[in-house]
Amino acid sequence: MSSRTYRVAEIVGTSPESVEQAIRNGIERASQTIRHLDWFEVTEIRGHITDGAIEHIQVGMKVGFRLEDA
Amino acid sequence: MSSRTYRVAEIVGTSPESVEQAIRNGIERASQTIRHLDWFEVTEIRGHITDGAIEHIQVGMKVGFRLEDA
Amino acid sequence: MSSRTYRVAEIVGTSPESVEQAIRNGIERASQTIRHLDWFEVTEIRGHITDGAIEHIQVGMKVGFRLEDA
Amino acid sequence: MSSRTYRVAEIVGTSPESVEQAIRNGIERASQTIRHLDWFEVTEIRGHITDGAIEHIQVGMKVGFRLEDA
Amino acid sequence: MSSRTYRVAEIVGTSPESVEQAIRNGIERASQTIRHLDWFEVTEIRGHITDGAIEHIQVGMKVGFRLEDA
Amino acid sequence: MSSRTYRVAEIVGTSPESVEQAIRNGIERASQTIRHLDWFEVTEIRGHITDGAIEHIQVGMKVGFRLEDA
Amino acid sequence: MSSRTYRVAEIVGTSPESVEQAIRNGIERASQTIRHLDWFEVTEIRGHITDGAIEHIQVGMKVGFRLEDA
Amino acid sequence: MSSRTYRVAEIVGTSPESVEQAIRNGIERASQTIRHLDWFEVTEIRGHITDGAIEHIQVGMKVGFRLEDA
Amino acid sequence: MSSRTYRVAEIVGTSPESVEQAIRNGIERASQTIRHLDWFEVTEIRGHITDGAIEHIQVGMKVGFRLEDA
Amino acid sequence: MSSRTYRVAEIVGTSPESVEQAIRNGIERASQTIRHLDWFEVTEIRGHITDGAIEHIQVGMKVGFRLEDA
Amino acid sequence: MSSRTYRVAEIVGTSPESVEQAIRNGIERASQTIRHLDWFEVTEIRGHITDGAIEHIQVGMKVGFRLEDA
Amino acid sequence: MSSRTYRVAEIVGTSPESVEQAIRNGIERASQTIRHLDWFEVTEIRGHITDGAIEHIQVGMKVGFRLEDA
Repeated sequence: MSSRTYRVAEIVGTSPESVEQAIRNGIERASQTIRHLDWFEVTEIRGHITDGAIEHIQVGMKVGFRLEDA
Repeated sequence: MSSRTYRVAEIVGTSPESVEQAIRNGIERASQTIRHLDWFEVTEIRGHITDGAIEHIQVGMKVGFRLEDA
Repeated sequence: MSSRTYRVAEIVGTSPESVEQAIRNGIERASQTIRHLDWFEVTEIRGHITDGAIEHIQVGMKVGFRLEDA
Repeated sequence: MSSRTYRVAEIVGTSPESVEQAIRNGIERASQTIRHLDWFEVTEIRGHITDGAIEHIQVGMKVGFRLEDA
Repeated sequence: MSSRTYRVAEIVGTSPESVEQAIRNGIERASQTIRHLDWFEVTEIRGHITDGAIEHIQVGMKVGFRLEDA
Repeated sequence: MSSRTYRVAEIVGTSPESVEQAIRNGIERASQTIRHLDWFEVTEIRGHITDGAIEHIQVGMKVGFRLEDA
Repeated sequence: MSSRTYRVAEIVGTSPESVEQAIRNGIERASQTIRHLDWFEVTEIRGHITDGAIEHIQVGMKVGFRLEDA
Repeated sequence: MSSRTYRVAEIVGTSPESVEQAIRNGIERASQTIRHLDWFEVTEIRGHITDGAIEHIQVGMKVGFRLEDA
Repeated sequence: MSSRTYRVAEIVGTSPESVEQAIRNGIERASQTIRHLDWFEVTEIRGHITDGAIEHIQVGMKVGFRLEDA
Repeated sequence: MSSRTYRVAEIVGTSPESVEQAIRNGIERASQTIRHLDWFEVTEIRGHITDGAIEHIQVGMKVGFRLEDA
Repeated sequence: MSSRTYRVAEIVGTSPESVEQAIRNGIERASQTIRHLDWFEVTEIRGHITDGAIEHIQVGMKVGFRLEDA
Repeated sequence: MSSRTYRVAEIVGTSPESVEQAIRNGIERASQTIRHLDWFEVTEIRGHITDGAIEHIQVGMKVGFRLEDA
């Protein structure tokens, strides 16, 4: 009833463009296979550099989702 | 043989009543879909407040379970 | 396309012999059920002691793996 | 409009009886002078000991509340 | 004289659009009631998800401001 | 004189029943062999699970006690 | 009654001379506007450097004070 | 041979405009004097406020680069 | 009865040879004076360097042991 | 032989005068009952405030000492 | 132009006398080889003990300095 | 004279074989360009995985070295 349980998964979204887009890419991909996504929390902002320029950005996130009643 | 491997999942148990009950609700729900649960560790105690009173308590936990031989 | 998403799982590898072997045992077991494993990161080195000697070593790890396009 | 701002205050609730009661005492007292309390998060559980017994328990908490439009 | 004292407040700015905008919304709101704001520091980037999309972003910040001579 | 020195010991109290009882059990046992216990601080809440139910709860604590003049 | 509630404020004391003086300057200033100050805890020791010499020292502190009954 | 060694430097990139631009400004400047930059990791997002508006943003980063064979 | 209490001691094991041996040396020495050692947890891996080579390795560990009934 | 083992104890030194003196008071008292003290590390700087002035300062420290061969 | 980049170096200043002097010794030495030093932040306060007395104090610091235009 | 100053650099040693070898490879490479290396501290143990097996191990370390008198 009122005592819902949530599960937290850890993902890394990436983007060649921006931190903002890496967050959105990761959540969009997660939402394709996880139902009832409820919140996210950024845990890490990293990236790879090639020839002195940012090649892609990696944003680590925890995403929480509600478990359906078993 | 003797080198078992464990997996750690992160869950959030909730309860309108107490921290204690939120822990138990979360583990009970997890045990319905995860076998061989072995330990838990509280990582966060939070809650929502409505009209100056606690509406429900959320307890974040890591739960460890043994993986069966593949 | 270029915006891959990764998932991070937390495991505990064990070994009666060494930290090194516990890391390898955990990753070997994980690779039997997870595809596209890409990196690991040690989060914890613990162990159990019996009669004054190390009985087995437990190494907590995060392992990252690429999600296939949904 | 949709971009609400919240403020987070740090309080310490106390109780001679239990962790649970210290949380509730702190939030009850905070709600007497802060409006729109929305969430809390436990940051610390401590206490004083006298003659080998717990005299009172202190629970540190962050409490978040919505700021009204200025 | 030269020994100024500062106070640090914790706020959460929000935005349906971006991390960048959530920072700016929070500081703008804080500056309506706090004088002499001097610096900010991001402590947390979170958000709520509805139907697989980010509904709003929450950026926790500490903001420092100079206290006037009492 | 006025410059008392304290020592901090780390203990783990356990209970099959509750977090609250695990705290009290640990402090009661510590007070049997340590004099002048003055404060405690919870550092960890964990537990073991057997057959999907909590078997016992373990609460890590630091306990501070005053050293007598040498 | 016996269940007092405390509030914790974060301040930064400064001094051109010493860490010790920055702590005292900050608490002295805080005590001019906050009643019932009870404890402090240093969270950060920083400073500005000009022409290779320390210009002023900044000590971040949390200060706790008892709330009066509402 | 195959055992490359990397060095990690800590920098602070700044921008009057955005977090995103502060990251890029810092890496661009670092790449002018450091060869073989390979990755970055954001460690801190701060900024200065003047007259209630963000004057400039400071993003602390660790940047890793491969050392050439000595 | 079932509510055992444990004590946690912090030690540093050393070895001129390896991290693995430093762990074993520390636990072997601890087991000579502490009974009922039950677990260990690595908290720090450090070492001294002389003339460009590792002279000895120091591994900080917490070791837990069961207290006998008082 | 060459593989010495160290033990780490946690103490709190106090002084009505200064952080510096609290460190020295704690180590002086510890050296009265612990032999072979080798290093210390400050973990916490706190204090009590009475009538708006610092009554005494408390400095938490870890102190390491060499264990004699058993 | 307005987007300055800073570099952060980590140093350890030492003194046989006081924490205060160890900070000043470290910054003075750093200023002999690093130009444009702008700020420091204490990260660690440690020391060595000989015959029960503090032999020298070590203060770990991060120091930030502005990079000149390349 | 007695107030030596140290500098701390952050490196990442790598090895296809073991954690132990990655530490030694990193320090050996560092000692080729840095004089007076005095200590190291492991900050991170990571690695890359290819086809389910560890390809190489990366050990992050801080290394401290004494600065010569300027």
